[in-house]
Amino acid sequence: MTEEEFLKFLRQKFRPHSREVICGVGDDCAVLDFPDHWLLLTLDTFVEGRHFSWDYFTPYEVGRRLAAANLSDLAAMGGKPTFALLSLSTPRLEEERITVFLEGIKSKLALYGAELIGGDTCRHEKWVISLTLLGHTPKGGAVFRHGANPGDLIFVSRPLGASAAALYLWQKGLEPPASLKKAHLDPDPEVTLGAILAENQLASAMIDVSDGLLLDLERLCEASGVGAELELERIPVAEEVKALPLEDPYSLALKGGEDFALLFTVPAEKAKILEQLCRRKLYQIGRIIPSPGLFLLEDRTRKPIAPEGFDHFKV
Amino acid sequence: MTEEEFLKFLRQKFRPHSREVICGVGDDCAVLDFPDHWLLLTLDTFVEGRHFSWDYFTPYEVGRRLAAANLSDLAAMGGKPTFALLSLSTPRLEEERITVFLEGIKSKLALYGAELIGGDTCRHEKWVISLTLLGHTPKGGAVFRHGANPGDLIFVSRPLGASAAALYLWQKGLEPPASLKKAHLDPDPEVTLGAILAENQLASAMIDVSDGLLLDLERLCEASGVGAELELERIPVAEEVKALPLEDPYSLALKGGEDFALLFTVPAEKAKILEQLCRRKLYQIGRIIPSPGLFLLEDRTRKPIAPEGFDHFKV
Repeated sequence: MTEEEFLKFLRQKFRPHSREVICGVGDDCAVLDFPDHWLLLTLDTFVEGRHFSWDYFTPYEVGRRLAAANLSDLAAMGGKPTFALLSLSTPRLEEERITVFLEGIKSKLALYGAELIGGDTCRHEKWVISLTLLGHTPKGGAVFRHGANPGDLIFVSRPLGASAAALYLWQKGLEPPASLKKAHLDPDPEVTLGAILAENQLASAMIDVSDGLLLDLERLCEASGVGAELELERIPVAEEVKALPLEDPYSLALKGGEDFALLFTVPAEKAKILEQLCRRKLYQIGRIIPSPGLFLLEDRTRKPIAPEGFDHFKV
Repeated sequence: MTEEEFLKFLRQKFRPHSREVICGVGDDCAVLDFPDHWLLLTLDTFVEGRHFSWDYFTPYEVGRRLAAANLSDLAAMGGKPTFALLSLSTPRLEEERITVFLEGIKSKLALYGAELIGGDTCRHEKWVISLTLLGHTPKGGAVFRHGANPGDLIFVSRPLGASAAALYLWQKGLEPPASLKKAHLDPDPEVTLGAILAENQLASAMIDVSDGLLLDLERLCEASGVGAELELERIPVAEEVKALPLEDPYSLALKGGEDFALLFTVPAEKAKILEQLCRRKLYQIGRIIPSPGLFLLEDRTRKPIAPEGFDHFKV
């Protein structure tokens, strides 16, 4: 099975039964109904040699990056992060290395008001680290993947491709510019924006761009039972990516992954007040259509486009 | 650092600041103060080749065993388990293998009223799996490691050594008897007992025996600022372990680990009603003393005994 097939399989076979479960497998967080709020839970695993390499990452950055991925999942549902638990598998408990790694997690969580409160550790040849992050929204206050409707406008929160471009350059033996390195090693999760979109009921559906714009858009569309049309020239590509000698800079923006931007849909009538309420630039890149499938508008032609992106288990 | 040194280091350097944190690093679960209950969180990681081998375990049993370890941590604080999240790193997503593994987790959780509601997966050469389990107690209703007082009697919930004996036999190329195999592959967490001990305020301190009786007792004593005296002949050794041709069957019971029995202290005046309220046999094995250190009473002599047990990072 690929990761996509596995996730589908999980959603079918492992449907939770408790009435407290607002949302189980199949969104960025699990959501539980508590008496005075919704509890959000997310978990992200980060593996040496697969998600990160010590050639590019310091232990501090590994901690920052791990926390960022979890914070981004919480942001994608509009949640406020609170507490985290760490699972650390590592070859050796070297005090300095572990201290700076933990400082990386702590400092990143602290930026968003969250704290590391526990975990487990064991020995393994490679670093395999997994963070569980808790957060909350008011009751009824989370934004899901499944709320997009035909006609809704599709937005992305910032230019894309920077993280994938850094990796591309490293793998060519080149040193990326500082801003691209930062995007890869220490990305900023959109926690504040996610909360504003949720609180003001601006977003009808939301996901974070972790495996590539197209793949994550396809997930949002599939959950909502709709399709999407993207306008290529509206897709924001990070400036430093445009400056690279690439045949197709859009490829990194469409399929690159690890951008940790928010991808969300907004009903047309709310789009006018969107930037005003969010107090920042946001990028409208397309619109939701009734029938399934992704389409790309380029030079007045409309072509179907495959939802390619990163899948750990695809050969 | 050894695992013990690392845990001490974490307790010193990573003290949580939020007032919702009743207990962070340093007990079987993290405990958070919620408006109408305490939320308990625990996380356990299980690594192929370190915690388990495919020579002895089926995928179903790996799932059962992983869930059992988490349930036991929750039992050790008297919590009622509710929901779990899984981190699964595995070389391939083979449908049948993954299905029975997940069925193992699900079925074990279901025995105690808990459900798997989400997680993350990625590719890695070895299985590295980590489960985060949530649970709750009424406000003020959890039992910690730090509540033991001099004079309290020390109890263990059932005979020890069976899980370690199974592993010992496998490693000698022998087939263990069914009851020993069951103890290793599919141990029963003491969720019901833990809850009774907590609800009736019988236990002053509690921990589960995961790394060996002596090491876990030392952890309880250290957290409580006390020591302990054990009576060797009172320590219950599993019948099937006694039947093995071992030089010292007590060694497996004292240091073996993965018993997932509960180890707890009870004020002397409550000890009389203990078995009546718990409706089962429990084993008094010693008593708490004021000064630190573990001592073993054997044939009327009293000898200090080192808190040896399993430490993943000890060379």
